[in-house]
Amino acid sequence: MTQQLAFSKGHGTQNDFVLVADPDDQLALTPDDVRALTDRRAGIGGDGLIRVVPSSALPEGRAALADAPDAQWFMDYRNADGSIAEMCGNGVRVFVRFLEHLGLADLADGRALAIGTRAGVRRVRREGDQYAVEMGEWRLTGGTQALADGYDAQVRTTGLDGVRVALSVDMGNPHTVVALATDAELDGLDLTSIPEVAPVPPAGTNVEYVVPRAETHDGGGTTVGPVRMRVHERGVGETRSCGTGACAAALAVAAWAGAGAPSTWFVDVPGGRVRVRMLPDQRVELAGPAVLVAHGHVDLAELRAGLTSEPA
Amino acid sequence: MTQQLAFSKGHGTQNDFVLVADPDDQLALTPDDVRALTDRRAGIGGDGLIRVVPSSALPEGRAALADAPDAQWFMDYRNADGSIAEMCGNGVRVFVRFLEHLGLADLADGRALAIGTRAGVRRVRREGDQYAVEMGEWRLTGGTQALADGYDAQVRTTGLDGVRVALSVDMGNPHTVVALATDAELDGLDLTSIPEVAPVPPAGTNVEYVVPRAETHDGGGTTVGPVRMRVHERGVGETRSCGTGACAAALAVAAWAGAGAPSTWFVDVPGGRVRVRMLPDQRVELAGPAVLVAHGHVDLAELRAGLTSEPA
Repeated sequence: MTQQLAFSKGHGTQNDFVLVADPDDQLALTPDDVRALTDRRAGIGGDGLIRVVPSSALPEGRAALADAPDAQWFMDYRNADGSIAEMCGNGVRVFVRFLEHLGLADLADGRALAIGTRAGVRRVRREGDQYAVEMGEWRLTGGTQALADGYDAQVRTTGLDGVRVALSVDMGNPHTVVALATDAELDGLDLTSIPEVAPVPPAGTNVEYVVPRAETHDGGGTTVGPVRMRVHERGVGETRSCGTGACAAALAVAAWAGAGAPSTWFVDVPGGRVRVRMLPDQRVELAGPAVLVAHGHVDLAELRAGLTSEPA
Repeated sequence: MTQQLAFSKGHGTQNDFVLVADPDDQLALTPDDVRALTDRRAGIGGDGLIRVVPSSALPEGRAALADAPDAQWFMDYRNADGSIAEMCGNGVRVFVRFLEHLGLADLADGRALAIGTRAGVRRVRREGDQYAVEMGEWRLTGGTQALADGYDAQVRTTGLDGVRVALSVDMGNPHTVVALATDAELDGLDLTSIPEVAPVPPAGTNVEYVVPRAETHDGGGTTVGPVRMRVHERGVGETRSCGTGACAAALAVAAWAGAGAPSTWFVDVPGGRVRVRMLPDQRVELAGPAVLVAHGHVDLAELRAGLTSEPA
């Protein structure tokens, strides 16, 4: 018996997702289904699975609606291991692009669309083929002392001589940002090993390595400091992009630059370029591309059978 | 401007492929297109891309037709790096499954279908949901001396104590098969490093690690020796399956077993189970599953744009 599921495959700076529309909250995808669909060889493949569901269908969605009555759609994000995740800065851009593809939203007029997520409401605007997301509140984990010192942690990394100082940034999830001197240092990192951070963060940390580059750009009247970045994601390893990591990187570099630092930063990750803008009230905006590569249907019965089929 | 390409995604024991039908030889896919389509994050993702094209459209296909006038369809196989490949033992099963999906072939009556490949004609039969492929001629690279000694090479591997002896098998491509004593040895291998083979094979080699398991099965009247295997593919690294590697593993274990060895072997690879049968005239048959997970279309313009899109 066939069991067809419509899907799209998309990515934001090569952080990639299997996308499914469930406007009537009819899909019961188990963790096994999510693992099979996101499996890169036996399934479609993705860093995660994103389900479009009405906010009214889920308790976390109804909380978002109470906060923002226009947050009609909820981003139900699942990690590739089948577990539930709160938010994904790259994923929410692709989510909105998918809503537009489905005809469930239209951001052509430049208005901000409220989206329900497990981390609260996120507002997204479109600028041409780019999407800009208001991220949650950030803070320097080490507070004013870390700001004065310029660091509050030390990191030892395979492929990099000695121990480097780092600044800890809380974006809702933990980040440790290490400044490097040259592109050669960045390119020489071996991020197949887990970086050793001291003091040891209680719940682990993502580690961003950044090279503030020499040239500057003009970003709509604001001087822009471009930053190259590589990231080791907690529990995952090196990835081609991390949205909250790019924000943390820009915030750390701005903190190091001190008063008069640009308020807009481009961050070049292995998967592309994003833009981070400082907003009032300890908030930032993350902008970047959202791409829908493919649309199709998957045969869930064949997908599952493919995990076990054997010759007689 | 959109540019739509219909595709399917399939796998054979988790050796996975992007499949495209080109019955009129109209598609001009560049190496860049192949790299983008097989990219696991920015594209669909696959170990390779397989194009269905009439044998009459290509010189290699016309050579196949001269050999077997019924070899109407040609498997145009491209590696994920955009280069051309001769053959793929897992891929040819999925190719035939795709032909059936397209309505271009029907193997329900158990007959063998001739397929054109750059390594010559391959004949494929269906047994239920499994596909059996007659592979090319094999030989022990070290000849009768290697057969008498039981080995003709030595291999040093990260995660494995000391140097182990190995038997070299030529399946059209080079293989070096190492026998291990226990599942623990097999599970402890670190195949992120390239195994060191001595003497150094002139064009490199695939390395198969096998554990002949204690239990035996009955395979249609023939005693069957099941073999567990992991493989380090030349130029790729560890993969979940390698069709010619499974054949080489069965041939080496049969050679070690000597006279009276079973003529049918099951080989358990990380991606599933295949069956290897010894045929007359130094040939083998490889049988295993072929799964089509998804069908859809890809927007080539958006795929390409997604590799370069940047915020303003």
